[in-house]
Amino acid sequence: MPLDDTQLDRYRQEGYLVVDSLFAPAEIEVLLAAFARDARVEGPQRILEEDGTGVRAVYASHLRQPEFADLVRSPRVLGVARQLLDDELYLYQLKINAKPALGGERWAWHQDFPAWRIMDDLPAPRLVNVAVFLDDVTEFNGPVVYVPGSHQAGTLADTRRGPARSAQHLDPDDIALRPDQLAGLMGRHGMVSPKGPAGTVVFFSPQIVHGSAQNMSPHARRLLILTFNEVTNQPRHRGAPRAEYLVGRDTTPLVVAGGTLTGAAR
Amino acid sequence: MPLDDTQLDRYRQEGYLVVDSLFAPAEIEVLLAAFARDARVEGPQRILEEDGTGVRAVYASHLRQPEFADLVRSPRVLGVARQLLDDELYLYQLKINAKPALGGERWAWHQDFPAWRIMDDLPAPRLVNVAVFLDDVTEFNGPVVYVPGSHQAGTLADTRRGPARSAQHLDPDDIALRPDQLAGLMGRHGMVSPKGPAGTVVFFSPQIVHGSAQNMSPHARRLLILTFNEVTNQPRHRGAPRAEYLVGRDTTPLVVAGGTLTGAAR
Repeated sequence: MPLDDTQLDRYRQEGYLVVDSLFAPAEIEVLLAAFARDARVEGPQRILEEDGTGVRAVYASHLRQPEFADLVRSPRVLGVARQLLDDELYLYQLKINAKPALGGERWAWHQDFPAWRIMDDLPAPRLVNVAVFLDDVTEFNGPVVYVPGSHQAGTLADTRRGPARSAQHLDPDDIALRPDQLAGLMGRHGMVSPKGPAGTVVFFSPQIVHGSAQNMSPHARRLLILTFNEVTNQPRHRGAPRAEYLVGRDTTPLVVAGGTLTGAAR
Repeated sequence: MPLDDTQLDRYRQEGYLVVDSLFAPAEIEVLLAAFARDARVEGPQRILEEDGTGVRAVYASHLRQPEFADLVRSPRVLGVARQLLDDELYLYQLKINAKPALGGERWAWHQDFPAWRIMDDLPAPRLVNVAVFLDDVTEFNGPVVYVPGSHQAGTLADTRRGPARSAQHLDPDDIALRPDQLAGLMGRHGMVSPKGPAGTVVFFSPQIVHGSAQNMSPHARRLLILTFNEVTNQPRHRGAPRAEYLVGRDTTPLVVAGGTLTGAAR
């Protein structure tokens, strides 16, 4: 399913593109089973809830679970990412966020690229995020909210505010935009929060302003995010690089392969 | 505008009823001007933001501003409230909550009646809330979310959990429902979050389970809530009663009066 010109134009103008039900329910089942398996693997790549009762996020599942390695190369993910960028690609990061039931945490309004520039000395925002809904996303379970077109405003917050809140990642609060910046952007562009059944995919720019509120529902809301980077845009890592599960080190250009995700060949 | 039988049935079955644009934009302007005036009146009835920069809530504006005194007696508010309850009514509480821009706070899932039973020794849930949108309510600015039909489940949390977080009111977190209770109710009934232009009104039961997420938008979201109680259901106040701005002491039966809110006669 290559994107058509209308879709490509929309992505460039709005900074995001929704493709409803890009993956079938049976494929999502495959991914959820692989996630359940991966969530039992102990290690620093697995982030627990503060109260220790559940898994809040897992990084780099493609290094352990073949279903995610297949997904990374699939035409619907890598093929489309290639259309949206200009060069060959490698996987910069893969994470699965589970926004827990009846709370979760909000994510402050932010752009992704400033975080990676600060943490990894990444030269340019030549990346694309691919967000795969692993659960139905509704208005009630903390959908990601985007400011469409805000990616055209450039890098809005490029210095960290105060000390970092986490050694592992740059918390969005550390690079949160100022209220006057947000009021201006939202006044011009409004807000959108894509919703849809599990299997829906949102492609979004590393420069688009986005955030999310809490999950009011009684079920976790799991979201898989793959980030592809151009092979000529590798981090400079002036300091020690972050762990491989956070920032991919295999920069071999990825080749599109596979079709339906069945998990059957394994 | 008395409610018709369909609307009355819906309120009884669902525990809430939305009437779109019950007040005209010009009437909302009158109320907002009165609120702006009232928000400058210092006193315990005025709750400031934690950072002191803004007004988070004001209680009992009808005791100081004639526009709100008119609203309390208006056919569209008191007249409808009389339809929804069985006896003559007085005003139990009037408050205006401003959910601040780019954050605000979530309100944990709760029922109102248990709070009043604990704080005021209120005998029975023979009250009705009338929520008037003073700003447009959207999916982005922390709309109140209701579990329709949950008012039929009775009083679900009747004991305070831990010490009170505020001497002034019972924080919803103090009487928050258990996750298993919520999962059951939401599984059976789902959730709804009424949205609409300023002037829209939601009538809701003191027993309906409700909560709200943060305000992601760059503007405050102001909501006026009037609570009417039956005159035969007065608090027993086994301890000292709460301040009059929190719990109305004038239990004289209210009489419907007035029409369009113009503020002109003052």
